[in-house]
Amino acid sequence: MRCEVVAIGTELLLGQIVDTNSSWIGEQLALAGIDSHFQVKVGDNPDRMEFCIRQALERSDAVICCGGLGPTQDDITRNVIAKIMGVEMVRDDAIAAHIRDIFEGRGRVMPENNLRQADVPVGAATIAQMPGTAPGLVCPLVVDGVEKVIYAVPGVPHEMREMMEGTILADLRRRGGEASVIRSRVLRTWGYGESALAETLADRVDALDVSGLATIAFQASGIEGIKVRITAKASDDAAAEKILAAEEALIRELLDEHIFGIDEQSMEAVVLDMLRARGLTFAAAENLTGGILSSRMTALDPKMEVFRGATIAPHGTNENALALSGEDRAVTAAMYAREMIGADIGISALSPPEGESHPPGTVFVAVALPDRAEARTVALPGVLSRMRSYAVITALDLLRKRLSESGLNA
Amino acid sequence: MRCEVVAIGTELLLGQIVDTNSSWIGEQLALAGIDSHFQVKVGDNPDRMEFCIRQALERSDAVICCGGLGPTQDDITRNVIAKIMGVEMVRDDAIAAHIRDIFEGRGRVMPENNLRQADVPVGAATIAQMPGTAPGLVCPLVVDGVEKVIYAVPGVPHEMREMMEGTILADLRRRGGEASVIRSRVLRTWGYGESALAETLADRVDALDVSGLATIAFQASGIEGIKVRITAKASDDAAAEKILAAEEALIRELLDEHIFGIDEQSMEAVVLDMLRARGLTFAAAENLTGGILSSRMTALDPKMEVFRGATIAPHGTNENALALSGEDRAVTAAMYAREMIGADIGISALSPPEGESHPPGTVFVAVALPDRAEARTVALPGVLSRMRSYAVITALDLLRKRLSESGLNA
Repeated sequence: MRCEVVAIGTELLLGQIVDTNSSWIGEQLALAGIDSHFQVKVGDNPDRMEFCIRQALERSDAVICCGGLGPTQDDITRNVIAKIMGVEMVRDDAIAAHIRDIFEGRGRVMPENNLRQADVPVGAATIAQMPGTAPGLVCPLVVDGVEKVIYAVPGVPHEMREMMEGTILADLRRRGGEASVIRSRVLRTWGYGESALAETLADRVDALDVSGLATIAFQASGIEGIKVRITAKASDDAAAEKILAAEEALIRELLDEHIFGIDEQSMEAVVLDMLRARGLTFAAAENLTGGILSSRMTALDPKMEVFRGATIAPHGTNENALALSGEDRAVTAAMYAREMIGADIGISALSPPEGESHPPGTVFVAVALPDRAEARTVALPGVLSRMRSYAVITALDLLRKRLSESGLNA
Repeated sequence: MRCEVVAIGTELLLGQIVDTNSSWIGEQLALAGIDSHFQVKVGDNPDRMEFCIRQALERSDAVICCGGLGPTQDDITRNVIAKIMGVEMVRDDAIAAHIRDIFEGRGRVMPENNLRQADVPVGAATIAQMPGTAPGLVCPLVVDGVEKVIYAVPGVPHEMREMMEGTILADLRRRGGEASVIRSRVLRTWGYGESALAETLADRVDALDVSGLATIAFQASGIEGIKVRITAKASDDAAAEKILAAEEALIRELLDEHIFGIDEQSMEAVVLDMLRARGLTFAAAENLTGGILSSRMTALDPKMEVFRGATIAPHGTNENALALSGEDRAVTAAMYAREMIGADIGISALSPPEGESHPPGTVFVAVALPDRAEARTVALPGVLSRMRSYAVITALDLLRKRLSESGLNA
């Protein structure tokens, strides 16, 4: 099965919008085992759109057209597809009614123009997922005696994604004669380098090569850590989930506390959930990290119910800490932030004071728990801006480890 | 003149990297008045690369190949271009020596592989700008009796940009027979909505329509404000700059203090520069903005020489402020941050206390200068996360205005 993406919109060519949709679709196709050899961007021009879609149909079995389904005159993807299919457009009354309902639900009058979105090529099916006013389309057609398909999805990322995940990926695999399903799970790790991680999991990779049940892939993701993706192919969902669960258990034994989350869970989300579950609050001394930790935490906890705040100053406003050095200084800063803000736990990340000699990238991180405190000395890579972001995750990771091993509760 | 971008790399198709290069190039081409009708992404496959480049050459006068110039075996852009040109590859000794120098300068031994980067198609010129180890190429060729050109640039964004700005854009315009130059300047604004801005500048837009000397375009850029781009076409640089300067002066009269910067200047960079020039420091009360302001400031001022820190807590740690409401509360918070951190100036952004009734999005921002304090009540749009970012810029903008009008100095 081979599938191509045609991204439609003059604004894409002009660089007014970066085409993240094609990248995301490309990733999903790869995960589903579907080949994709080309991606094309084309403006809102009927002849050039027709040319691109026809060419994609020649060299692939399926084409996903992304964009150009809006209500305005330059949204012509529907019309171009109808021309390629050699059919007329027909108004879909159910879709038209649905669009009217959406406008009424928002207390707004529907401009007549919006009904254009209910016009679909004869023979096309509409996609069940319809989060906006643009229906997605599945348009089967025959090219040189071979059955092919054009999908049309809106350019609005979340609408496109819902249709891809709800309908198109499964439809593509079915058309490709794939009775099996592919499922994957990402284990999020922190604290391992990529080669050390690969070495630790080498036996598992080899074992899976033999069994063929699943594959393991690594993806370095900067301050998001290294992702370990397990992908399983099986006859149905339940069987695939069983393989994933078994493999995850084996990998967890090997990586242990280095795994901080799964799939889309970020370090800060994991720490926030753990604290919330335990009824604990925390505060930070952002001497080195200058607000990066706070802005990440308050993005998830804007009312600051769990993350209670931070002190941000280059060397702290704490005279006690200034007299110390190294890990002691970090612990004192963490305790100071905790007391100053009034939280159960304090964390900190500090560079060495000027004048002291340490290896490049040396950072002291500390956690002050209600009953004890602990610090670590780490050497973080990269330029200052990158080092500061790494310091944030390293401090949160230390807190996570202490929370997970302790019976700590408010 | 018509130019097409071919982005090369399997990682682009797989969605492991988002292709921001094509978007940026598309924007530059548009600004230079060069048409671009298609953009293509293709994997590291010689046949498919050749197909895409040949097709682009058929329908355009110039093709920019982005990526595949690295030192490894799958970096084959050079070879594919040589095949299309119908020529052999030859080692460029000057480039080879330069690559060796780069490695030696970093105290590293050059892997032999890297010399592949010094192999160029016979007849190709290397681009003078070479910030990395991959030389860019200008490859003239004749297609069906018509002179065309292929440019090859690395996929590393800053390397590609340097070559585009230093060589390719000018070369394209020269080949297109354009003796004129196009220059543009962006005026960064804050505080106007897009339609109000367009209305205020409507007479200028009309006047330029008549004179044809320049054009004005608006681009809403979220918390980066609305950008007003003046673009001038003239016989040479000096003439274009003169038109830009004259138009900028006219627009500044109309927009006055709403213009906070030009081109790539962000609000925080402008405020930082103003404070540094005056020898002043500042601190913030990030009750509402929870670290967003701090992380933006410390990204530019990591040693916190000008931005001295912040207090981050949901309602402040300041009992005096808690008793107040509205603008008074914001002023007190700004003064508290200033004293607490020990800076010359304090700024704050606060939501109304719970229980008080205000229009949605109401935010109080305040600036406490050494000699006086001032607050504003604004209604900011969007969901909470967006509103918080807007609040950061609004507070910085208030500080900027007070600095620019006062003779304030340390």
